[in-house]
Formats: sequence, structure tokens, C-alpha cells
Amino acid sequence: MLQVYTGNGKGKTTAAIGLAIRALGAGKKVYIMQFMKSLAYSEQKILAGLQNLCLETTGKPFFIAEEGMLSKAELDSWGSDVEVFPKGKPPKEYVQILQEGLLKAKADFARGSYDILILDEINVALFFGLIDKDLVEGLLQKSGSAEIICTGRNAPDWLLEKADLVTEMKEIKHYYTRGIEARKGIEN
Amino acid sequence: MLQVYTGNGKGKTTAAIGLAIRALGAGKKVYIMQFMKSLAYSEQKILAGLQNLCLETTGKPFFIAEEGMLSKAELDSWGSDVEVFPKGKPPKEYVQILQEGLLKAKADFARGSYDILILDEINVALFFGLIDKDLVEGLLQKSGSAEIICTGRNAPDWLLEKADLVTEMKEIKHYYTRGIEARKGIEN
Repeated sequence: MLQVYTGNGKGKTTAAIGLAIRALGAGKKVYIMQFMKSLAYSEQKILAGLQNLCLETTGKPFFIAEEGMLSKAELDSWGSDVEVFPKGKPPKEYVQILQEGLLKAKADFARGSYDILILDEINVALFFGLIDKDLVEGLLQKSGSAEIICTGRNAPDWLLEKADLVTEMKEIKHYYTRGIEARKGIEN
Repeated sequence: MLQVYTGNGKGKTTAAIGLAIRALGAGKKVYIMQFMKSLAYSEQKILAGLQNLCLETTGKPFFIAEEGMLSKAELDSWGSDVEVFPKGKPPKEYVQILQEGLLKAKADFARGSYDILILDEINVALFFGLIDKDLVEGLLQKSGSAEIICTGRNAPDWLLEKADLVTEMKEIKHYYTRGIEARKGIEN
């Protein structure tokens, strides 16, 4: 089954982590690949210590965005070393890093007999054209009975169509809009 | 700060659990009170083993619902021992159990110097009138600098108004509607 968590609200990555915890509690084996994130996320410290869970990260945290598209707090929530690039101009080295990350996830997943595969922020990577659609489709086709979880804003339509479950995390209210910045242990 | 996760989509409780994991990773102390849930949720096995986290549950899992309001899969997702009661007629013993749970959370929280307080499914308990609004308001007033997380469908308007952050988990697509039942380690 394919689950997609998308939308502009808080709770997409945390929902995937919570699902990982639930699955581990049921004796399942979980693989998480975090795309476009630094190693600075607090959850990683706890996840790294759990049995039957493999956590990998790939890519530097960055955005390809129009000038002013994202507030400072939104950028901060992605980690302190986030970089912003002009829209439509992903640096080639980044594209390569992310593609390699996906291929690694695919290979690890095929070898490791995992029950759950979490591709955190892959929707964003797909949206920005940093990851090849065909590669992701190939991975989904070979996932067998595993549960695949894709998170991130702007999930592409073809992924939503393929999905068995889609939840839109919709921002109704956020303290970012009041100028409150990202907080350690809450946003990152 | 007060965060509310509501809506009819999957991901509310898991987002709260993920937030707990992230907060623990940042060295914070977390208290979780799960309302209206059985002890059968898979995540509890993992959470119970984590340092700096206190997990409590209160109440039997039950719904007060119109006949046919919830599908079998939706009921199953709440645990196998869920009970359904007619709308507007909450059994008095249940009201008492939940109130006691809230008071326990309040007392534990005041004593334990926690940074995060998760009140899982409290929105549902409030919606059904099983928990006194004044009690919850009193708890929120005394929360100081702590982060309070309230989850569950049908969060009441007064709670949304008080909240600093509200995410609506919106069901765009769900396999329940295809007749697929709740699965251990995924839904419970």
C-alpha cells in the first residue's frame, strides 16, 4: 500500500515517524530515507537507537524557490544549513546526490526485507524535479506487500493517483505567521 | 504553545508520537495521556521503553455515534474492544473515567516538569461532552512554557481559537473506503 502525506501544514514528517514507531511496536521492520534534510533533526537521535529501524539521510537541505517564497521561520524549520536556489535551476550535484539516495534506498530495501519504507520529503524532491519520476515508479512497482510512505508538500498528481491513502495536512493556523521561529525539538 | 491536530484524515496521533520522538531527541521530557484508547496500540510498546517519556492511557475505547455513522474498518482502527453507544448518551462511568484521566495528567504534569504534554484524542472526548471544557481550560492556563498537543477529530471551536497552531488532517483518499480493514502496526 502507498500512503502519501502532503499539504502545507505541520505534521507530515512527524506522522511518518509516528507510523514507524507504531509499526516497530507490532514487530515490523522499517526503513527511512530522509531526502533534502540535514543530519540535525532531533528525532534522528532517538530513531538511530531503535532496533529493526534503519535511518538514512541524503542530500543537503535546500530549496529551489522564488525570492521571498518562504519565510525565515519556514527556512529555519529545515535546519540551520539550508540553502536556497533560484526556481528551475537545481544544481546538478544535488540532483545526483538525491538520485543516489533513492537508488540506495531501493537497494537496501530490496535486500533488507523491510515491511515499511518511508521516503521523507520525497514529494518535494519530485516537485522540484530533483528526482526522476521513473525511478520512484520503479521502486513502487517492486515494493510488493510493503507499506510505502511518501511525505512532503506538493505531492505530484501521478503519485496521488497511485496512492491508496492520501492525507492533506492543511495549515489552519501557524505560529510562524506571528513571527515565531522554528524551535529545536518541535520543528527540527 | 498549544498545537491542535484535527480532521478526518489519518496522521493525527502518529504526528503527536513523531513530535514526542523529536522532542525526546532534543533532550525534552514528554508526557502522553491517551484518551479513549485501549492498551492494544502497537506504538505503546516502543514508547514505554523510552527514557524521559511517560505514557498513560485512560478510558475504554468507545464511540458515541449514530447507528452506521462509522464503518467497521474505522471502528476496528480504534482497537478490537471498542464499544458504541447512542449519541448524546455517554455512560456516566465513562465520563468519570475520562475526567479522572485528565486530572491525573494535570497532577503528573504539574509534578514532573515536562516540556511537552500530549493529550491524544482529547478533541473527541470534548466533542462528545465526556470531558469538562473548564478542566481542559484550567490545564492550558497552567501549562506555562510547555508545549501542549491536542489530537482527535472534531476539535471544538474554542480550542481552535486558543491554539497557536492548528493542522487539519484532511482525508483525500483512504483505503477504508475500498473495504480494507485496519491493520496491526499501521492503524493500531
